Amino acid sequence: MNIYEDFHNRRNEGNDAVNRQDYLPYKRFFNLDTNAYSEAALPSKYKELMGLVGSMVLRCNDCILYHIEGSVNAGASPEEIKEAMNIALVIGGSIVIPHLRIAVKALEELTGD
Amino acid sequence: MNIYEDFHNRRNEGNDAVNRQDYLPYKRFFNLDTNAYSEAALPSKYKELMGLVGSMVLRCNDCILYHIEGSVNAGASPEEIKEAMNIALVIGGSIVIPHLRIAVKALEELTGD
Amino acid sequence: MNIYEDFHNRRNEGNDAVNRQDYLPYKRFFNLDTNAYSEAALPSKYKELMGLVGSMVLRCNDCILYHIEGSVNAGASPEEIKEAMNIALVIGGSIVIPHLRIAVKALEELTGD
Amino acid sequence: MNIYEDFHNRRNEGNDAVNRQDYLPYKRFFNLDTNAYSEAALPSKYKELMGLVGSMVLRCNDCILYHIEGSVNAGASPEEIKEAMNIALVIGGSIVIPHLRIAVKALEELTGD
Amino acid sequence: MNIYEDFHNRRNEGNDAVNRQDYLPYKRFFNLDTNAYSEAALPSKYKELMGLVGSMVLRCNDCILYHIEGSVNAGASPEEIKEAMNIALVIGGSIVIPHLRIAVKALEELTGD
Amino acid sequence: MNIYEDFHNRRNEGNDAVNRQDYLPYKRFFNLDTNAYSEAALPSKYKELMGLVGSMVLRCNDCILYHIEGSVNAGASPEEIKEAMNIALVIGGSIVIPHLRIAVKALEELTGD
Repeated sequence: MNIYEDFHNRRNEGNDAVNRQDYLPYKRFFNLDTNAYSEAALPSKYKELMGLVGSMVLRCNDCILYHIEGSVNAGASPEEIKEAMNIALVIGGSIVIPHLRIAVKALEELTGD
Repeated sequence: MNIYEDFHNRRNEGNDAVNRQDYLPYKRFFNLDTNAYSEAALPSKYKELMGLVGSMVLRCNDCILYHIEGSVNAGASPEEIKEAMNIALVIGGSIVIPHLRIAVKALEELTGD
Repeated sequence: MNIYEDFHNRRNEGNDAVNRQDYLPYKRFFNLDTNAYSEAALPSKYKELMGLVGSMVLRCNDCILYHIEGSVNAGASPEEIKEAMNIALVIGGSIVIPHLRIAVKALEELTGD
Repeated sequence: MNIYEDFHNRRNEGNDAVNRQDYLPYKRFFNLDTNAYSEAALPSKYKELMGLVGSMVLRCNDCILYHIEGSVNAGASPEEIKEAMNIALVIGGSIVIPHLRIAVKALEELTGD
Repeated sequence: MNIYEDFHNRRNEGNDAVNRQDYLPYKRFFNLDTNAYSEAALPSKYKELMGLVGSMVLRCNDCILYHIEGSVNAGASPEEIKEAMNIALVIGGSIVIPHLRIAVKALEELTGD
Repeated sequence: MNIYEDFHNRRNEGNDAVNRQDYLPYKRFFNLDTNAYSEAALPSKYKELMGLVGSMVLRCNDCILYHIEGSVNAGASPEEIKEAMNIALVIGGSIVIPHLRIAVKALEELTGD
């Protein structure tokens, strides 16, 4: 699992560095971020897919990898993820394509689809 | 209904102008755009909310108004819309706030919430 | 000519205010900006159309109005402008649509097309 | 004071609408936002100017108006504000110019410079 | 040819993955994208240069590499490409500089200029 | 010093390539860019921190590394840099987080904090 191994390593290493700063405003922001995706009126699965759309139109690869994994873990099917990624492609245009290429490879890695 | 009256007028007038161009590539793009939100593996309601998140993080007021209306019409509750808008706020940051202000007023206009 | 009257008034008023600052770094930047579109290896017409594409994908209405006018003045046909705007639409995605609506109305105002 | 009268009215009206939602995640985000600019290791004046630079490069007019006012209230001189706005112009490029026009007019309104 | 070898490998691998999805909406979007640059009222050379400007101001490295290659293949001279890239630099500002560095190295690789 | 060694190598190599183009408009832009951060009404330290905020909200890693180094060299303390980075995080939202991770690691490399 190449894409995710690399991502998890970089992410953990970066989060460790942020945590070593021991800076309350960062912690509060990270908290808000985590809470935004908790199951509530909207099921987690759809919240993760919303995070995926937001990440793709803003073209943030690490955010895309994070929310594809979150979507799969929350039970999203490859078909559902494809539909969400297509919404992002149409909203964000052809500059999303290089990110779609990575997203699709990441999805294959996670699901075999 | 001030916000939506103004929006519908501007949108219709603009779409009429685009249609008068009678230009096939525009039509094809508009088609892809419409199709992306059709009910399929994902219910329309969640697709509209994904469109809303994408529109908020990219800070496009007319797109926001369009997808709030679409979400409400597809049965999204004010609570669900709030959760989606919060995801957009956290992803996109404080520069989303001026758009959140308009979004909340638009939501009040449509739903009374 | 409603769109351009409003644009010219706002732009002149704003430029007057910037000039009143009498601040050399602003003047230098404005100079670089003007020079970038001067006829050289590339004809002005195509430079204006490049400015138009850049303005549309970055969703800057005043920049769009400026470069549509520049394109028309440099001899671009409505057909050429449409093709350039379509490139911007495909690159930038559906969030460009509200700007395309204004661009097409501005083009009609200038050319009757 | 036309620019700021309009801004304050729209901002207050929008904030009232957001407050009527009585939604904890919004309140938490607004709190983080306010705290980020409190005097600490960095004096408020420079924090406001940093907020101004961030707002200009992201091309958010309401955010620009907010931080110009904050900078002036925290004691920034017109010269200091000009230097900060020039940094934003150079970072963000010519698409910042329409926002610079408004920023300079707002600054004139507040300071007479 | 280091930059382009890496780019072509990554691009082909990614496009293969997208194709394996066999998803009609992606194919339609990719089609619109290809068609937007076909020779018509505007010669391909200028369309590629417009694509290059759009890609630089949106800071998409793979899109930049793609359109530099397309521009060169459509007969654009190094001088013409430089003028187009300068338009992008002025529109997009200093955050374009890291992408300009890569673009110039890619141009050297392709043309020896 | 891994992050900065890689950055300096890539930056120098890229700047050499830009210089080989020997193109006056690029030189002028690079000049404006350098001048914007010179000590004047605002001390260099705060200008570098403003450059850092602008770079983070626009999510440009090389620009972030450049201005962290500039801030440290101009005497900014780790605490001051943290406060500036927090302003950028709040303005730009969670998509800034992957850049914050790199920024914090770069700061550790430079200062040991």
